Amino acid sequence: MNKQAILRDFIETVWNQGKIDAIPDFIAAQYHIEHDPGDPWDGQRLDVAGFQNRVAQSRAPVPDQCFDIQALFDSDDSVCMTWLWHGTHLGEIAGIPPSGKTLRMSGATVYRFDGQRISGHWQVADRLGVFQQLQANR
Amino acid sequence: MNKQAILRDFIETVWNQGKIDAIPDFIAAQYHIEHDPGDPWDGQRLDVAGFQNRVAQSRAPVPDQCFDIQALFDSDDSVCMTWLWHGTHLGEIAGIPPSGKTLRMSGATVYRFDGQRISGHWQVADRLGVFQQLQANR
Repeated sequence: MNKQAILRDFIETVWNQGKIDAIPDFIAAQYHIEHDPGDPWDGQRLDVAGFQNRVAQSRAPVPDQCFDIQALFDSDDSVCMTWLWHGTHLGEIAGIPPSGKTLRMSGATVYRFDGQRISGHWQVADRLGVFQQLQANR
Repeated sequence: MNKQAILRDFIETVWNQGKIDAIPDFIAAQYHIEHDPGDPWDGQRLDVAGFQNRVAQSRAPVPDQCFDIQALFDSDDSVCMTWLWHGTHLGEIAGIPPSGKTLRMSGATVYRFDGQRISGHWQVADRLGVFQQLQANR
């Protein structure tokens, strides 16, 4: 399977559907969060269990979250994905109680590949937009 | 010249060196800011003079600003660029007076090409990080 097809399957299965049992099929033994400003795991190297924990914790307050892939760009060992994200705010985020409202975010992520497995990412997201939505919904 | 070489020249000449007289050599007659959450020009279509005004206004409070290109990714009509940015805060930003300190930001931009000219972009940047730096420097 080519890198773009693997990435589409990973996003849908793991991040959109939340099937953390499928994570060992997608990621390498070590996953490096190279750059992800504002993310609690920025800079960390995670094993498979650590990555499963990250997905579970990230998805918990927004369990119906969905990444809509905007475009994919290939390079030799990476795929860059631009995305829009939305989900219903149903659990505490950064100390802010759930509002039941839809949150929206934009971002771009460069996923690194080691053969058929994803081994890390470099990411930026519009966290200021989310912060402003959380404040407005209080 | 290929798209990546044109883009590198555009970033260095226009955004890093601030040579707005060179803008007609790089951009199309209409430039569409498709998606740029938090940017004052988000959604607008600019002619060359409008684009020159945008660059001049954007650079004014951080005149030594520099985009360090991290990676470039090609597709048929676009180049996606991941970047780190830094510059010295020497003018008012969003009502916050200059601190004289270095500001840093990360981002990713998909630049659209119409032949040899750049005709628009889709961008996301870590504006929350900048907001936090501005607050910390007050």
